[in-house]
Amino acid sequence: MTETAETRPGWFSDRELESIRGRMPVMYVQAVPVRVDEVGEVTRVGLLMRATADGRFHRSVVSGRVLYHERVRDALLRHLEKDLGPVALPRVPASPQPFTVAEYFPTPGVTPFHDPRQHAVALAYIVPVAGDCQPRQDALDLVWLTPEEAADPVVGAEMNDGQDVLVRQALAHVGHAP
Amino acid sequence: MTETAETRPGWFSDRELESIRGRMPVMYVQAVPVRVDEVGEVTRVGLLMRATADGRFHRSVVSGRVLYHERVRDALLRHLEKDLGPVALPRVPASPQPFTVAEYFPTPGVTPFHDPRQHAVALAYIVPVAGDCQPRQDALDLVWLTPEEAADPVVGAEMNDGQDVLVRQALAHVGHAP
Amino acid sequence: MTETAETRPGWFSDRELESIRGRMPVMYVQAVPVRVDEVGEVTRVGLLMRATADGRFHRSVVSGRVLYHERVRDALLRHLEKDLGPVALPRVPASPQPFTVAEYFPTPGVTPFHDPRQHAVALAYIVPVAGDCQPRQDALDLVWLTPEEAADPVVGAEMNDGQDVLVRQALAHVGHAP
Amino acid sequence: MTETAETRPGWFSDRELESIRGRMPVMYVQAVPVRVDEVGEVTRVGLLMRATADGRFHRSVVSGRVLYHERVRDALLRHLEKDLGPVALPRVPASPQPFTVAEYFPTPGVTPFHDPRQHAVALAYIVPVAGDCQPRQDALDLVWLTPEEAADPVVGAEMNDGQDVLVRQALAHVGHAP
Repeated sequence: MTETAETRPGWFSDRELESIRGRMPVMYVQAVPVRVDEVGEVTRVGLLMRATADGRFHRSVVSGRVLYHERVRDALLRHLEKDLGPVALPRVPASPQPFTVAEYFPTPGVTPFHDPRQHAVALAYIVPVAGDCQPRQDALDLVWLTPEEAADPVVGAEMNDGQDVLVRQALAHVGHAP
Repeated sequence: MTETAETRPGWFSDRELESIRGRMPVMYVQAVPVRVDEVGEVTRVGLLMRATADGRFHRSVVSGRVLYHERVRDALLRHLEKDLGPVALPRVPASPQPFTVAEYFPTPGVTPFHDPRQHAVALAYIVPVAGDCQPRQDALDLVWLTPEEAADPVVGAEMNDGQDVLVRQALAHVGHAP
Repeated sequence: MTETAETRPGWFSDRELESIRGRMPVMYVQAVPVRVDEVGEVTRVGLLMRATADGRFHRSVVSGRVLYHERVRDALLRHLEKDLGPVALPRVPASPQPFTVAEYFPTPGVTPFHDPRQHAVALAYIVPVAGDCQPRQDALDLVWLTPEEAADPVVGAEMNDGQDVLVRQALAHVGHAP
Repeated sequence: MTETAETRPGWFSDRELESIRGRMPVMYVQAVPVRVDEVGEVTRVGLLMRATADGRFHRSVVSGRVLYHERVRDALLRHLEKDLGPVALPRVPASPQPFTVAEYFPTPGVTPFHDPRQHAVALAYIVPVAGDCQPRQDALDLVWLTPEEAADPVVGAEMNDGQDVLVRQALAHVGHAP
């Protein structure tokens, strides 16, 4: 699962975190950024374009760890700001109920989601974004796709770890054909 | 269940609507208006103050019928504008999944909800409102209460038809103590 | 939208119902029957096979009207018994929150759902079924498909009115790839 | 937050777990056991009675950690069996969407939930239980209350860490007055 560097210094050394990652599930939040019209209908889905270490590109949603003593909604906002910049004006949901819980296992096939590094459990939210997005850090770009484009297998093939499934689950939740 | 005059002319005469109301469930939408902070946490709940025919007052949420060939999200926006005015800037939810379905029966006690006039089934949504609210038509005022105040039995006693239960269900859904 | 004859006599004559259908939304429930394993994971999706008037076949979910003074959960059970027989042992959900609301418009393209006869608004639920299913009335058969089969476009093409979208939305909601 | 001994040996020594608990959120599942009638309506809520170290009693829901490489639904079933015995026949939900996410902070007041030992994030589910419950381990008894009794402040006062709020949120979600 894609994750950019934490903006706050962690409470663990890299080595400690590595050790924990092999022994307990790590809690994540994931946000599917969307544009909505006046009546709340999703008109666009935002996907980040990132470069991988080996020089290839892939698309992803906003994603990151929940830190110690951090509320889920604070973690969501922090990762949205980290990936979309300071003036994206994301509307973090009022309810803590996620639209789904995505379980990323180090072993492929247990669920549709997979993370070779760790067992991550992600609370997934749909987040309307009203402002101007300026991808930062390792995100090269943010592309707004129509719901039809976002559900396209060609676009799905550019996502890793089962995130294409997550995007289609998000489309289903907002009433579109996934 | 409180309902203000429809802003569009109906497709039925009053007499026809009366006849149908006694014979099939009528579809409603209900919205609990809320103020949220930067991370989406509900800080205030908005309740309308209305006068009843006999000169008493009661509080209520935004509520109204879904018309023929009207989408649920269009009905929500129409009733929000009708009750809160044109510059309330309501954020109609992206998902059609309501936080609950409130079934108002003409017979008390079937559910916590009751409507002496009809069998109404209401899809209930929590709607963050960012702008300036100017209650219109039969709504005299809109009062913003803290979640604690909104859950108070004294406030609940000022609501009819079980709407106090709906407000507490909404608080529960956004993570507050109902 | 497919609907079998009501098992209770209606409150309207056919002519009255026809007249109302052209003038107000009609409330439906829809159930996607599923088989689940011991930990609740969906292993099969049940689709009814029906014959249309012109001798063709199509697949559909369980579907029907909510009657006057009938609770949504009673309507769900009634239609499940009507379509799946008396010993299907359906587990009607404890929560009234549907996984989605499917809006069937007489005009195609307003939503993914379409019903040439009427404007129907359906509360859609996923219903685990533990017993033996004996399709009745106009349903010729009930076929249990794997989630992968149920999401297949070939199967989807055998469904009308956008019910293939509803089935994929249901799969998304239970954590499968839609 | 109440938690009984894990039934599987942990991957951490007590000392390691203690150290991690002070530095990252720990993932939990919580289940509110309910009895439902034929149409899915909740008729009873099950609360465990436990003894605390100082000889007092308190009530609680089913609760426990998600282990490394364990699916949320497997963790739910494991803790349900641990607390309710092997023949309780719990019906783990088909959807991974929890009815709420309860965030237990070591600092009181951040959320309605509090756990002096750790920062725990619990995915909370309502679980219909059809069989015979035989509380085990540190649970002395399981008492089935009506929804009205479960929402009573006197009963709520016998619960710790904000679990009374969780029970009322669960009641709200299944359509009862919380």
